[in-house]
Amino acid sequence: MIRRSVDWVWPENFRVGAADRGLAYGDGLFETLRLIDSQPILLELHFKRLLAGARHLGLACDRQLLAQWWQELVRRLRAQGLDNGVVKLILTRGSGGRGYRPPASPRLTVITSFHPVPPLPGDGGVATVLCRTRMHATMGGFKTLNRLEQVQASAELPADAYEGLMLDHAGRLTEGTRTNLFLIDEQGLVSPPTASLAVNGVMRTALMQLLPSAGIPVREQCLQWDRVRRGRGLILVNSVSGIVEVRRIGCLELPSDSRVATIRRLSKQAFGL
Amino acid sequence: MIRRSVDWVWPENFRVGAADRGLAYGDGLFETLRLIDSQPILLELHFKRLLAGARHLGLACDRQLLAQWWQELVRRLRAQGLDNGVVKLILTRGSGGRGYRPPASPRLTVITSFHPVPPLPGDGGVATVLCRTRMHATMGGFKTLNRLEQVQASAELPADAYEGLMLDHAGRLTEGTRTNLFLIDEQGLVSPPTASLAVNGVMRTALMQLLPSAGIPVREQCLQWDRVRRGRGLILVNSVSGIVEVRRIGCLELPSDSRVATIRRLSKQAFGL
Repeated sequence: MIRRSVDWVWPENFRVGAADRGLAYGDGLFETLRLIDSQPILLELHFKRLLAGARHLGLACDRQLLAQWWQELVRRLRAQGLDNGVVKLILTRGSGGRGYRPPASPRLTVITSFHPVPPLPGDGGVATVLCRTRMHATMGGFKTLNRLEQVQASAELPADAYEGLMLDHAGRLTEGTRTNLFLIDEQGLVSPPTASLAVNGVMRTALMQLLPSAGIPVREQCLQWDRVRRGRGLILVNSVSGIVEVRRIGCLELPSDSRVATIRRLSKQAFGL
Repeated sequence: MIRRSVDWVWPENFRVGAADRGLAYGDGLFETLRLIDSQPILLELHFKRLLAGARHLGLACDRQLLAQWWQELVRRLRAQGLDNGVVKLILTRGSGGRGYRPPASPRLTVITSFHPVPPLPGDGGVATVLCRTRMHATMGGFKTLNRLEQVQASAELPADAYEGLMLDHAGRLTEGTRTNLFLIDEQGLVSPPTASLAVNGVMRTALMQLLPSAGIPVREQCLQWDRVRRGRGLILVNSVSGIVEVRRIGCLELPSDSRVATIRRLSKQAFGL
């Protein structure tokens, strides 16, 4: 890799400088990308979100840098015979600057790691809990390295819960710790508004583009709790685990809706997940 | 150091594992401690805040660990002849866990670095600007590693501004990017309520304990903007730079109050800064 303004960190020497701003302030972004039979799932949407987040933070990450990264990644995956799993990419502003204030021309740090696919639930659906930790949409839905609310919420999960659901400051159901959610009602799907999200997931974006043209309308509306109780079902989505049906939130049992199977089929056809 | 559950990182080998949760999620805390003629300023308050933050995040950091750290720090400072400067301490949850979810028994990372004292303004006061980036008090005022709002606000600062002031979601003046603030009015000092702070600074805490007994009352009240305009002055405080008078916010000139000199004198007597 010849780009001089980047420090590349790969698994064989998986260390970073302790003055890195990613560590000091969470000054950076990340993506987790599923790989199925050597095919990256929703790669273009991952890249788009990363580039938009970089613009938001003022990080000099562009298409050329991502293309360089991808080329090197594919070479390494092939060399190691890795066809399936999860690739994690962290992009930080590197080190330097005066305190919080970023340096004028930072040398970015790009960190890559490979992971096995986490345990995936079957089609029968999952149990979740409602977390006490509230979430705040402070960074435009970008996947920044400031994720303490998700960490705190995750620490609340009992062993038998697949995911924790989070409310915003006004008590509205907004997202899971690592998933976005859609409520199912008579008319179709309902998602909390994009502006209310801590993380605007790429699988959510992909489904909002796909489903309306397949006859399943999607609206953005705030989800007060009584609406969830009256709903016909709830699904959790992300780009690693795909679409997961929620059958329980704490003691509240949720119905199963026949449209979930259709949504899953459409998603598999369109995105491979 | 014999404590097995801690990875100590010192300047001579200033690297951390790239899977550290401090980097991945900002899962940790930090303190910056001023050293004047070998005396640490407000050490006990720094330790108290760090321990309270560790309890909040569920990090197993206790007095014994801090005592170990302090002993080793003093030894190193003596060996290098460092009497003055700033010591930065970062405490992270180390690596491990399943995604956001923390591991049951994390091995903490403790990172220490030494820095020169940043440029300090004279007693004549400073110019500041009002930042567009808003602040959110989401983590109990603890000094966590989730500091992107401060980074974003700092990036707004023009070269001639000493500090950027931040408003909360409701447009109330709440703190600086690296300082807490007190408004001066007829009755004494006014500070934004503790619960509204992104960082509850140790110098703020120290002054709130000290000043009332010296005849300068301190109240906690929300600071609407018109209140700042009608005020008699504004000071910024932190434990590295001490007490700094604000003479300007953007185009708004602020008056200078004779009580600032008294407050500065009381602080120097009591805390050495």
